[in-house]
Amino acid sequence: MSYAKQKLKEEKVFKDPVHRYVHVRDVVIWDLIGTKEFQRLRRIRQLGTTYFTFHGAEHSRFNHSLGVYEIVRRIVDDIFRGRPEWNAEERLVSLCAALLHDVGHGPFSHSFEKVFGLDHEEYTKRIVLGDTDINRVLSKVSEDFPEQVAAVINKTYPNKLVVSLISSQIDADRMDYLQRDAYYTGVSYGHFDMERILRVIRPRAEQAVFKLSGMHAVEDYIMSRYQMYWQIYFHPVTRSAEVLLSKTLHRAKELYEQSYSFRQKPVHFASLFEGDCSLEEYVNLDESVVMFYFHVWQEEEDEILKDLCSRFMNRNLFKYIEFDPAAEQEKYAELEDLFRKAGIDPEYYLVHDSSSDLPYDFYRPGIESERQPIYLLMKDDETLQELSSRSDIVEAISGKRRTDHKLYFPVDVLRDESSNRTVKRRIRNILEIYRK
Amino acid sequence: MSYAKQKLKEEKVFKDPVHRYVHVRDVVIWDLIGTKEFQRLRRIRQLGTTYFTFHGAEHSRFNHSLGVYEIVRRIVDDIFRGRPEWNAEERLVSLCAALLHDVGHGPFSHSFEKVFGLDHEEYTKRIVLGDTDINRVLSKVSEDFPEQVAAVINKTYPNKLVVSLISSQIDADRMDYLQRDAYYTGVSYGHFDMERILRVIRPRAEQAVFKLSGMHAVEDYIMSRYQMYWQIYFHPVTRSAEVLLSKTLHRAKELYEQSYSFRQKPVHFASLFEGDCSLEEYVNLDESVVMFYFHVWQEEEDEILKDLCSRFMNRNLFKYIEFDPAAEQEKYAELEDLFRKAGIDPEYYLVHDSSSDLPYDFYRPGIESERQPIYLLMKDDETLQELSSRSDIVEAISGKRRTDHKLYFPVDVLRDESSNRTVKRRIRNILEIYRK
Amino acid sequence: MSYAKQKLKEEKVFKDPVHRYVHVRDVVIWDLIGTKEFQRLRRIRQLGTTYFTFHGAEHSRFNHSLGVYEIVRRIVDDIFRGRPEWNAEERLVSLCAALLHDVGHGPFSHSFEKVFGLDHEEYTKRIVLGDTDINRVLSKVSEDFPEQVAAVINKTYPNKLVVSLISSQIDADRMDYLQRDAYYTGVSYGHFDMERILRVIRPRAEQAVFKLSGMHAVEDYIMSRYQMYWQIYFHPVTRSAEVLLSKTLHRAKELYEQSYSFRQKPVHFASLFEGDCSLEEYVNLDESVVMFYFHVWQEEEDEILKDLCSRFMNRNLFKYIEFDPAAEQEKYAELEDLFRKAGIDPEYYLVHDSSSDLPYDFYRPGIESERQPIYLLMKDDETLQELSSRSDIVEAISGKRRTDHKLYFPVDVLRDESSNRTVKRRIRNILEIYRK
Amino acid sequence: MSYAKQKLKEEKVFKDPVHRYVHVRDVVIWDLIGTKEFQRLRRIRQLGTTYFTFHGAEHSRFNHSLGVYEIVRRIVDDIFRGRPEWNAEERLVSLCAALLHDVGHGPFSHSFEKVFGLDHEEYTKRIVLGDTDINRVLSKVSEDFPEQVAAVINKTYPNKLVVSLISSQIDADRMDYLQRDAYYTGVSYGHFDMERILRVIRPRAEQAVFKLSGMHAVEDYIMSRYQMYWQIYFHPVTRSAEVLLSKTLHRAKELYEQSYSFRQKPVHFASLFEGDCSLEEYVNLDESVVMFYFHVWQEEEDEILKDLCSRFMNRNLFKYIEFDPAAEQEKYAELEDLFRKAGIDPEYYLVHDSSSDLPYDFYRPGIESERQPIYLLMKDDETLQELSSRSDIVEAISGKRRTDHKLYFPVDVLRDESSNRTVKRRIRNILEIYRK
Repeated sequence: MSYAKQKLKEEKVFKDPVHRYVHVRDVVIWDLIGTKEFQRLRRIRQLGTTYFTFHGAEHSRFNHSLGVYEIVRRIVDDIFRGRPEWNAEERLVSLCAALLHDVGHGPFSHSFEKVFGLDHEEYTKRIVLGDTDINRVLSKVSEDFPEQVAAVINKTYPNKLVVSLISSQIDADRMDYLQRDAYYTGVSYGHFDMERILRVIRPRAEQAVFKLSGMHAVEDYIMSRYQMYWQIYFHPVTRSAEVLLSKTLHRAKELYEQSYSFRQKPVHFASLFEGDCSLEEYVNLDESVVMFYFHVWQEEEDEILKDLCSRFMNRNLFKYIEFDPAAEQEKYAELEDLFRKAGIDPEYYLVHDSSSDLPYDFYRPGIESERQPIYLLMKDDETLQELSSRSDIVEAISGKRRTDHKLYFPVDVLRDESSNRTVKRRIRNILEIYRK
Repeated sequence: MSYAKQKLKEEKVFKDPVHRYVHVRDVVIWDLIGTKEFQRLRRIRQLGTTYFTFHGAEHSRFNHSLGVYEIVRRIVDDIFRGRPEWNAEERLVSLCAALLHDVGHGPFSHSFEKVFGLDHEEYTKRIVLGDTDINRVLSKVSEDFPEQVAAVINKTYPNKLVVSLISSQIDADRMDYLQRDAYYTGVSYGHFDMERILRVIRPRAEQAVFKLSGMHAVEDYIMSRYQMYWQIYFHPVTRSAEVLLSKTLHRAKELYEQSYSFRQKPVHFASLFEGDCSLEEYVNLDESVVMFYFHVWQEEEDEILKDLCSRFMNRNLFKYIEFDPAAEQEKYAELEDLFRKAGIDPEYYLVHDSSSDLPYDFYRPGIESERQPIYLLMKDDETLQELSSRSDIVEAISGKRRTDHKLYFPVDVLRDESSNRTVKRRIRNILEIYRK
Repeated sequence: MSYAKQKLKEEKVFKDPVHRYVHVRDVVIWDLIGTKEFQRLRRIRQLGTTYFTFHGAEHSRFNHSLGVYEIVRRIVDDIFRGRPEWNAEERLVSLCAALLHDVGHGPFSHSFEKVFGLDHEEYTKRIVLGDTDINRVLSKVSEDFPEQVAAVINKTYPNKLVVSLISSQIDADRMDYLQRDAYYTGVSYGHFDMERILRVIRPRAEQAVFKLSGMHAVEDYIMSRYQMYWQIYFHPVTRSAEVLLSKTLHRAKELYEQSYSFRQKPVHFASLFEGDCSLEEYVNLDESVVMFYFHVWQEEEDEILKDLCSRFMNRNLFKYIEFDPAAEQEKYAELEDLFRKAGIDPEYYLVHDSSSDLPYDFYRPGIESERQPIYLLMKDDETLQELSSRSDIVEAISGKRRTDHKLYFPVDVLRDESSNRTVKRRIRNILEIYRK
Repeated sequence: MSYAKQKLKEEKVFKDPVHRYVHVRDVVIWDLIGTKEFQRLRRIRQLGTTYFTFHGAEHSRFNHSLGVYEIVRRIVDDIFRGRPEWNAEERLVSLCAALLHDVGHGPFSHSFEKVFGLDHEEYTKRIVLGDTDINRVLSKVSEDFPEQVAAVINKTYPNKLVVSLISSQIDADRMDYLQRDAYYTGVSYGHFDMERILRVIRPRAEQAVFKLSGMHAVEDYIMSRYQMYWQIYFHPVTRSAEVLLSKTLHRAKELYEQSYSFRQKPVHFASLFEGDCSLEEYVNLDESVVMFYFHVWQEEEDEILKDLCSRFMNRNLFKYIEFDPAAEQEKYAELEDLFRKAGIDPEYYLVHDSSSDLPYDFYRPGIESERQPIYLLMKDDETLQELSSRSDIVEAISGKRRTDHKLYFPVDVLRDESSNRTVKRRIRNILEIYRK
């Protein structure tokens, strides 16, 4: 029997708190889970620094990847199977893309991508196509199968229906992470009726659509997404930890470029610092490696690196106020100046960070991300209507971008009056830090 | 106001998936949570290698420690407060001991303790009493306060009621971990009605007791405990990963003793290998440090170290059969011999492991652990009866130790017939490994 | 000790699936729960005919009333107690009003109120003030205590903060029923983070307000409310059963007025039919009484009464289409005419029903219901801001009324071609009923 | 297409809080649900008088019957389908028997059966085979199909595997009610891992068996069952309400036999009182009918009937003590005598009630119920081992019957010293009733 069709003698299951069980019958899927590149996802947290805010959020991308796979498996095996609009040949590529969609994530992805100009989607592609165990498994299916899987993940696959299962405004990826992140943090916001959504999802040429009778479940999903972004993903304390992380990497890079003599040389980071990280070096990175360096760098001589690492390890985070530097340029310049006068490098200790989200968008050609909207399938089983044209609630928030600006700084240093007392008082005045 | 009595201006809460919220009002508790020794618990998983079996089990001891604190807080603030048998002066020492009871755990505690002869209770004591941030916070309460907290944790505290809240056959520690581990793994076994148990817990001179009306909830807790031990904690796959971990540490130690020239020198392990690990070195150990070494040791020259590390990182675990070497000594000797003939070192690749549990014990003076039994408080509010004398179910399992023996080995190596084909076949025959 | 202050020797608890436990310490509350008027709520379903749509929705108003009491108890005992803005003297009247707020509901309230022109709030007042066990318990507190409790329920109580706990756009009543109805139906829409809302609720002179930090939980509550209305409370199948119920009561009244000779005389309904229902007669009504009559009326001679009762008992409901008679008056008139021609009385078998909801409203003096808006308490602990001025989502739906019109009819009769075949075909054509 | 094979054009689902959704594709099942005999189950509570103890337990047998059907559907469609030991022809009879297994239950079954010598299994058979809508639907499948369905329910069906799905020590009936009753009452005892049990259930000639790997889930199920019996089903307060109910029916029957002139004649009970209840009369009985009579009988002249009804309606229950009349015959006789002297009829006001349960039994030929034990399927996929021979916990409770005796009486009457003061004091002394 062809490798693509091989089934395990007995179904394997993973106990999963979100989906109860994740079911695996295909040998290809089982083999992919066993690869070292996939197992590496166990060492990369799903929510980066969120565990500093919500201590339950310690789950990994391994966890989430299995969940996305399971949702796609249920859609194609339980709902799409046998429908004329669904091509059964697309089953395996859908499952593999679902499982592997996050495989290119590095440790603390956001910060790493920003500091080093990386792109996890690019690395996902390289892992799928390059000299890896994953590629070897996929190639056993057929020569061009790795290309197909990569195309689905990169949204260039010709069958847009398949792409939409993994990347759209309502896809298996989002449906899993909203529920999963809510479960592990313990918040109630991520709940929506996925069972109902799965019952009403239908295959169409350009994308998956949703029967009108499930509209309220879809609305609820959009609201969950909105709440999770502002309650969890953009939580200012989480971002404070990310600021520390970015600044630490930044500092280490700067020192490296200045040929600073590290006690613990950043061998695992060297190629990143040099802007030329090979596939092999990339997959060698995970969060335990990063944590190890941060751990030992607490003993470095450089005061800034040492301080930032120690703050990160011991959760001694920066405090914050609402502040948009673009709107208050003079004040910001004054603050930078005062920080310098107080002997605190504003480059590392006065940090602006912004978050921005567009909870749902209808189709606006030529504008911004050109997101594919969500379509509802009318009772005639043919006509499609765009979600926001039917839903008052979704219409109300469609296309509305919300942005939030914060300014981060080490309040403990600013309160320490053993030095630069006057300047620090002026700073505290501007930042409106009063004694608790 | 004395430090012991200081309250935060506004209560702090931690969102917790098990207890909904963990509430902190006391400045002492808040300060302890902020210490680096306590924050270190974020980098030590609650369930060691269990995440290889149940992928959801990635939660840390930080997580659990807050939970134990919260349960004790509810007991003393909501139930014991105001009762004549409860001395309100014991409140703070109870809370601190609850929070800190696991602070001496090292990375992958079980394996480390076994291989290096460590004792986490000893290190807990040293962290509480030694030159640490935790000790500095506790000492601000009073000079002998650290000693008191350590005494509670070490069960030498004179007020046995306080000790029983944290260490007994039904304590806050167990009540938290059963529920928490069930939540993160997603299994249904850890559920019992803690709310009911908390409603019926009462302070008595020698220990906390439980009103008769809550007996069924206590029974259910005992059953949960039994199931969790055999379903989760002693799961053979988890133990297989532990076997790998122990053997890796073992090998590294051996190589160190043989002055093997490591590419990545085990500086963080040196004192452990030498059997003299200082407090400072100990608290510098966490799971990201261990994972880092395992990661880089995949590139070592020593074949065994390299192989074991790679297996651990990539979850290429040993398989197992039921086998008690004590009962089948000859067969075991034969297997060891055959392994050697096949060029596979039995010291590292043929490993016996046993688990054993006594789900509940009544008091048997002089025997084994001399556990304090659980007492039920009769309706007269005075008489106490030992649990197993009232409960058929508990009576049925009291004092019954269950033990399980397994033999672990690398099935992939034994199936590889490119070398030592005949010997491997004999081994496979004995181990009853047939083609799947 | 005064009756108002008497506590039970031991706290009583009710196991409750929504709040885990409902706690009772006050003798007054315990005595109220034991009255026959309160026990009667066990025989009145919380959600009327909803169980025909969601089979789980079989819970009673007894169930819900305990829940509202428990939420108010937690607010006043755990959060408000000790705050300067809260007058501890208001505790008991708040608890009693919470417990009793629904005590005047009759069987299938909506339909009964519409058909007989009743007002459950009026009957609540009469039960609290009249010759009842409840009044006797309340009067033991003080002579004017029944008046106070009635005033809170009727929103005429001078302390508007107390009123707002039970009747406002975010009150204990709604918080309980959204969660409870979601629990029993099994839908996911009713979940919001009540624990968080309770943590941020604060007493102010005119009403309870909510700390800004809990805004997202309040938003989520508003969304839950919106979804529950359209998914559960206004579900067209539930309304179909209500249509049947109303029409049955209507028919029985008509027959009574025509001196029709009932086999089972409607003695329990007589005073309702005559528009003069005494308090005693009212509290004698419950859903088992109504069901009994419907049951036996299946054997009446009158074809319409018999048919409607049988449909209700056996869930043979009317089907529906979207249809607004006001917008299509001619078509409606034609349909009525055709129904008559087909020998089907449109008065009973062609029924228009509309539902309408305003999910949240800010304050608009002089307009409609003049709802009190929800206020957020800023960080300065003084300034209040109206919710929709801070929340994009709430702003988006504020003041937007949504209305839905449906037309109900017996599709089985229209499909039965044994008589009036041509007319029925024309009707089916207009109603767009095609063979399934 | 044959009626047996007809599928609904679109699957129908019922939202269910326990199983999320109940799925119906078969026209036969859909038609059965629509029959009046099945809809009648909406008017019969699953747990009789339990709602007096656990207010959440207001769910109906309709609710539970759908759940049992859904579990059997999952077993046969998801697990058994395609296995050689399973005959696909048995699918429909299994589903129908699951759905209809409780259709013969009357109102408050236990009490009715005891007082009137009824047998709900007999009535189930008569409903399936007699002149009913259910019979008409089943007969459309084939002439002997009703007989087959009845045989499965009555355990006389030749294929014992089919019988075991609905009636055995671990069947769909029990799995549903344990979970459902736990859900509605809100207790935590009924949880066990049904998903796991369903994964390991396998068809064998004589019954369904369970793979060894699921043994712990089965153990947990047995423990849940044990706890639910003693915590919920045998709760002394529930039994107190049942005592009232039985005694009321008893009194009404006695009065009827004495030709007492009822104000509200018990027409619906007449044939029951006369011991000759026809099928038609039987299905006309439901709990709203019973409640109606109890309601109006509060106004009867007979003091005992009136009092018992009023107690039942207003939850003015009897209190109880542990007491086994068989063990203390003299005391019991003395109490009866004293009751008579106090003018309280012991026949109605001094009631012994016992509960007894055998949580699990292995096979003991000729003894008691000869229950079929639960078998585990060993890894060889052939050998079967009886559960208690493998499980320590189950072994410990196997065959152990637990019995509990209580004596019920109206404590309010005994405390009322306005008459028979001395005798009542003696009674109170014996019953150990002291002032609260």
